[in-house]
Amino acid sequence: MKIQLLLYPDMTLLDLVGPLQVWSLWPGAEVELVWKTTDPIPTDTGLSVVPTHSFADASSKPSILFTGGGLEGTTRAMADPDVIEFMQSRGETAEWVTSVCTGALILGAAGLLDGYRATTHWMALAALPSFGAEPVKERWVIDRNRATGGGVTAGIDFGLALMGEIAGQDLAEAVQLALEYAPSPPFDSGTPDKARPEIMEQVKKLFAGA
Amino acid sequence: MKIQLLLYPDMTLLDLVGPLQVWSLWPGAEVELVWKTTDPIPTDTGLSVVPTHSFADASSKPSILFTGGGLEGTTRAMADPDVIEFMQSRGETAEWVTSVCTGALILGAAGLLDGYRATTHWMALAALPSFGAEPVKERWVIDRNRATGGGVTAGIDFGLALMGEIAGQDLAEAVQLALEYAPSPPFDSGTPDKARPEIMEQVKKLFAGA
Repeated sequence: MKIQLLLYPDMTLLDLVGPLQVWSLWPGAEVELVWKTTDPIPTDTGLSVVPTHSFADASSKPSILFTGGGLEGTTRAMADPDVIEFMQSRGETAEWVTSVCTGALILGAAGLLDGYRATTHWMALAALPSFGAEPVKERWVIDRNRATGGGVTAGIDFGLALMGEIAGQDLAEAVQLALEYAPSPPFDSGTPDKARPEIMEQVKKLFAGA
Repeated sequence: MKIQLLLYPDMTLLDLVGPLQVWSLWPGAEVELVWKTTDPIPTDTGLSVVPTHSFADASSKPSILFTGGGLEGTTRAMADPDVIEFMQSRGETAEWVTSVCTGALILGAAGLLDGYRATTHWMALAALPSFGAEPVKERWVIDRNRATGGGVTAGIDFGLALMGEIAGQDLAEAVQLALEYAPSPPFDSGTPDKARPEIMEQVKKLFAGA
């Protein structure tokens, strides 16, 4: 089991760390955290992280290829020929091609979602058809060997669901218990359908200022 | 708003990144990620992270002092005089003294939970009384200026709850929407009460092998 996760400057850290924490409890799995170089790179939280492999050193045939999302950082990654070339090459050979949040836009830009049902952050769902993908408003979507999760925190649900699909429900349930994943949000404002209109306005401001 | 988060070798990454991702959307907040030095340090996921401040450079009066938990890494941190001295000095001046998961044991070892109601990972609840704390089986607990969260994923609920307490419900709801926090676990195995007995056995093995 080789799990290959793309890192890139200004990525949304929790998009990555949700599934990474889940999969780090996968017995026997090897994790590769890849970027162009192995120099530390900034994330959108103020915390910088250190890749373990450069693109050149990353396994040629991963079990799972993964990318998370972000804001401007994701837009830059989508327009970066090195990133697209890397994702295309590993996307061809990987057993699973996966994303969380606007990571789906990077998969899309690499041509990896053409003809697939997929999901992404609620703000970005409308962008999926431009990559030939069919947008689905679900917490995670599995279509053949493509697995995509919704916005940010959806990565935990996505990570457990994919682990259950590949390794069986028992392991995924054990990891859920280990991570005490019995969520209990203090408020009920997690989707545009549920949030009050003024909260939606505030989010637009938050994203504009980020 | 100065948010000071302790990093240490082999910490559980998601304990930190749950609240960090929530609080990174706090307008005007400054984040300090602190350890003895600013050299990269390994976490329990294979990803290494880079502190922004050494203990010597960290602000003397943070608004929020935070530590996450882990396994052996946490035990070592609890026994490290430099860590305890740092947590005691900032714990005296911080407006809020907080933790997620077994981070509560570090607060406890620094004498910061004596006489307080607190929570931690389900596996560690029984250890709280030895620090003079009253264990509470809740997702998060706020007692005067102490705020503690349960295991790992509880950090997201805890982070939003504390943000709501300090900055008001509107900001916390906006952040919840921005992070699309409408959790939908694929299985229902997140607490010892809910998990099947054989899953509990498997978790003990996972932790023993970690």
